[in-house]
Amino acid sequence: MGVCELCNISDADRKLLLYENAYWSIYLANKQDYVGRCIIVLKRHCGSLSELTVNEWCSFKDITSSVENMLKNELSATMFNWSCLMNDAYKSIIPNPHVHFHVRPRYAASVSIGDISFIDTDFAHHYNNKSENKLNEEQKNKLFCYLKQKIDIYFNEKQANILR
Amino acid sequence: MGVCELCNISDADRKLLLYENAYWSIYLANKQDYVGRCIIVLKRHCGSLSELTVNEWCSFKDITSSVENMLKNELSATMFNWSCLMNDAYKSIIPNPHVHFHVRPRYAASVSIGDISFIDTDFAHHYNNKSENKLNEEQKNKLFCYLKQKIDIYFNEKQANILR
Repeated sequence: MGVCELCNISDADRKLLLYENAYWSIYLANKQDYVGRCIIVLKRHCGSLSELTVNEWCSFKDITSSVENMLKNELSATMFNWSCLMNDAYKSIIPNPHVHFHVRPRYAASVSIGDISFIDTDFAHHYNNKSENKLNEEQKNKLFCYLKQKIDIYFNEKQANILR
Repeated sequence: MGVCELCNISDADRKLLLYENAYWSIYLANKQDYVGRCIIVLKRHCGSLSELTVNEWCSFKDITSSVENMLKNELSATMFNWSCLMNDAYKSIIPNPHVHFHVRPRYAASVSIGDISFIDTDFAHHYNNKSENKLNEEQKNKLFCYLKQKIDIYFNEKQANILR
């Protein structure tokens, strides 16, 4: 069986952990082809959406809201492309998939965050899966630190809304 | 504001309605670039995942399980690519998006259903968004009738499991 890369996340990727709750971990994607792209990884090894528990599924709803709000407010994202594909796991002879989602923020206008500037040339079209990384290491780390500092607000806000 | 095509589904697409519950409608996609591809459309006009209600979200969980089980058992799908993109709505000057998901069944082996045969040449890779329709009208209608006849089983089974 193929080794599960998501149960054994590399140190380089683990450094990009933005937030975690009981069920999910949110990482800034190593490849920033769309600036602010995140990967949301189930903490438990589970191979398909069908097998998610109700608690995992409900928790993911909170994550979609909080992550969309954060990327909208902090990066001026216009809308979002969500996907759960898991194709790579099937490159192994004995596949060993692990549920995770990609969220690509999409931008109608050019976006500037510090010295980072990004134009979403494919906006309103399918994301370009072969699009290259747009941020160097320093820019990616700056973006990570910026979002890491902000993300709790969006989860606490969600919590406050539930309690209201 | 752009007219919402999903609140005003064309007669050609409406004929491909496989199943509906209180919140969602499941259509066989008109373009069968991946055989068995379905589109799951929220019945209410709503522009983002963030704005889905808890009931809509929980209902969608049942749909992912039932649709995956159906496509696995009836078409021998190996795994599934799920996406919620909504890019087309942003081609309008005043976008008017409506939440919907695409599910593309993916096949490790060639699939045959009656006279339909399909090889997923990109298996274990990102789906090809420019892939052409693989079924003619007659084949698509046969596939629709076949799945339409079967789909209730998968939702009733789900219900039976809940009641057990």
